[in-house]
Amino acid sequence: MPHISQRAEKMPESPIRKLVPFAEGARKRGTHVYYLNIGQPDIETPPGFYEAIRNADLKVLSYSHSAGNESLRSTIAQYYTRLGLPIDTSQVLVTTGASEALLFAFMSCLNPGDEIILPEPFYANYIGFALTAGIVIVPIPTRIEEDFDLPPMETFESLITPRTKAIMICNPGNPTGVLYPLESLEKLRDIVLKHDLYLFADEVYREFVYEGQKHYSVLGFEELNDHAIVVDSISKRFSACGARIGCVVTRNKTVMGSILKYAQARLSPPTMGQIGAEAVYSLPQSFYDGVIREYDARRTFMLKALREMDGVYCPNVGGAFYAMVQLPVDDAEKFCRWMLEHFSYKGATVMMAPGNGFYNDPEDGKQQVRIAYVLKQEDLAAAMECLAEGLKAYPGRLVEATAAAKNI
Amino acid sequence: MPHISQRAEKMPESPIRKLVPFAEGARKRGTHVYYLNIGQPDIETPPGFYEAIRNADLKVLSYSHSAGNESLRSTIAQYYTRLGLPIDTSQVLVTTGASEALLFAFMSCLNPGDEIILPEPFYANYIGFALTAGIVIVPIPTRIEEDFDLPPMETFESLITPRTKAIMICNPGNPTGVLYPLESLEKLRDIVLKHDLYLFADEVYREFVYEGQKHYSVLGFEELNDHAIVVDSISKRFSACGARIGCVVTRNKTVMGSILKYAQARLSPPTMGQIGAEAVYSLPQSFYDGVIREYDARRTFMLKALREMDGVYCPNVGGAFYAMVQLPVDDAEKFCRWMLEHFSYKGATVMMAPGNGFYNDPEDGKQQVRIAYVLKQEDLAAAMECLAEGLKAYPGRLVEATAAAKNI
Repeated sequence: MPHISQRAEKMPESPIRKLVPFAEGARKRGTHVYYLNIGQPDIETPPGFYEAIRNADLKVLSYSHSAGNESLRSTIAQYYTRLGLPIDTSQVLVTTGASEALLFAFMSCLNPGDEIILPEPFYANYIGFALTAGIVIVPIPTRIEEDFDLPPMETFESLITPRTKAIMICNPGNPTGVLYPLESLEKLRDIVLKHDLYLFADEVYREFVYEGQKHYSVLGFEELNDHAIVVDSISKRFSACGARIGCVVTRNKTVMGSILKYAQARLSPPTMGQIGAEAVYSLPQSFYDGVIREYDARRTFMLKALREMDGVYCPNVGGAFYAMVQLPVDDAEKFCRWMLEHFSYKGATVMMAPGNGFYNDPEDGKQQVRIAYVLKQEDLAAAMECLAEGLKAYPGRLVEATAAAKNI
Repeated sequence: MPHISQRAEKMPESPIRKLVPFAEGARKRGTHVYYLNIGQPDIETPPGFYEAIRNADLKVLSYSHSAGNESLRSTIAQYYTRLGLPIDTSQVLVTTGASEALLFAFMSCLNPGDEIILPEPFYANYIGFALTAGIVIVPIPTRIEEDFDLPPMETFESLITPRTKAIMICNPGNPTGVLYPLESLEKLRDIVLKHDLYLFADEVYREFVYEGQKHYSVLGFEELNDHAIVVDSISKRFSACGARIGCVVTRNKTVMGSILKYAQARLSPPTMGQIGAEAVYSLPQSFYDGVIREYDARRTFMLKALREMDGVYCPNVGGAFYAMVQLPVDDAEKFCRWMLEHFSYKGATVMMAPGNGFYNDPEDGKQQVRIAYVLKQEDLAAAMECLAEGLKAYPGRLVEATAAAKNI
């Protein structure tokens, strides 16, 4: 029997999905599971998405253009332009989710062995795409007690080697909920220009910002036209994760030309998703306002609930719909699994994503979990109550952590 | 400005799509274009595909399971089992087209630098996936005058090195239309077992076989349970290219476990396509019979028309819906471009895929084109007439090739 590849052996299981078998076990026992592990919103997909697909008079479901339907690309370009980020159709290429956008960007810009600096903790699936592309993630640690803000410029520069080709950020941040202020982005701009690096930005949560703050896109810096590459997606913005429609946006023509070759090799993005996406990209501002109001209410509720739990530390979260939370437990992965296998409260339990999966070294972040506040408040309230009770009952609870959390 | 990657520079443009700008130019001039360059059938997608999507009562368009909806995987497993290839649900993983299936299989089974032996000419996009995975394609030449049948076992063995990890076939073949007889597959089985290799088989055209012949799947060999990996797709079978639904099928549990990790990293395949696919996989045999009858009529018509053209050589095609055709021209790519830029007949022209893009060395196959007989007979007739006239008018026509073709 032939061996599988070494890279496949290195490929981590998704921390977001690895506990799924235990959740299925809980459900089979009749326990209701609150899914806070995955960024799967319960917000309804706008009806216009479905209507557009229902009304599409297709006879043959054919391939689209490899870069995506021109009408969708133009609609997306207009969306950016409305945001004050002038983008034209040729600067947008439609992908099968932001996942594919990121893979194409990595493949086009980086050689195997090239290094990319990435604030840590980071979205776990980046590891998979880095392994696929054969590139090396160089984590730059950010700290929960500093609300995961970027470290000083010198820390970045100390990590730059001749193999460094790019810096990547997720803004607003998954899994941290961090929203980078303008000054942080200006710092990044300066480093990127000084060392002639690419700046990849995952901005799929662009609209999800709270407390009157403003999101700054890397596309807002004209100086970065040749450096900035944005990956984007309709999954969260329009609660349409299953559409698998994302895009890559850059003003760098050479990079876009390369990405198109990768896009041609896989023929085209999904046609149905493109039709739906075109409809929802034209929704008015009031749509976004309603969604953000809902998430903000959930966020406020969750932060209050978590901060009332003994020994739990939750930083400020300015964007997206996640929080990295420190728990008073020996090992957060064991705790998450225990919640699914051995605990229930009022007939239910909570699924969370173990935090160490969001660190390059799985020994880090072992007392953290990522919580996605994607459930309506009634469910979120039940989930928080259940988590509080679970923490009290968990045999691996660390008593001294309670005091430590107060001092963070 | 940072450089793009060396691998992106090596990435070839798709021979199937690289002439698209010239086709767009022709259309802008008012010339009708017959698209024989791409395997995009004009057969209508079964209405059940659209109905299933219209009737799906979705509120939130959520991610599916990373391996695909269990109900679809089970339906696909039953489809194989009906074909006499016993497969269970756990042996099927739904992908975003066969493209993604192939990428996951390469990543899971092969390390960078590993070699894969591939009969040439081969589907051009394999080059892109091989470059993405960092693996080396070792072409094993097959000859147009032998109808692209496999060479003797000794030729295979002479190419095996310590880095050889796999053999890959496309059966029925794209771009050649070759259908491998049982003896060829038995030869491959013996080599694969003797050298402990993987056998990848692209069988997306499985049903498209003519003249009463039978398709043999690599899944039919129990001895190959740990070696055989099939990539498949609904694109051609159900004329649903835009759905972007394919799958990878293997009885090797370790490989499937690895593939699942890659699948988790990209979250899930498209939900809408999965819903449609589940509906059409349940279609009765009469659906396939009707489609194959139509393609067979087109095939017969096209072969006759091509063989009546002076200097054109077309081998026998036993399956799929392509033919690699030798033309009496100095350079087939120049000819294809000339047809789009400078020629029209009765207000129309023909787009074909230059043959050299299907060879590892673009210096090979320079007088060949790939023709996809995916148009209804009326259009195919007009396209053949147009091609015949184009060949007569082309300034780079080779007169001596006419005699040569007769001697092949």
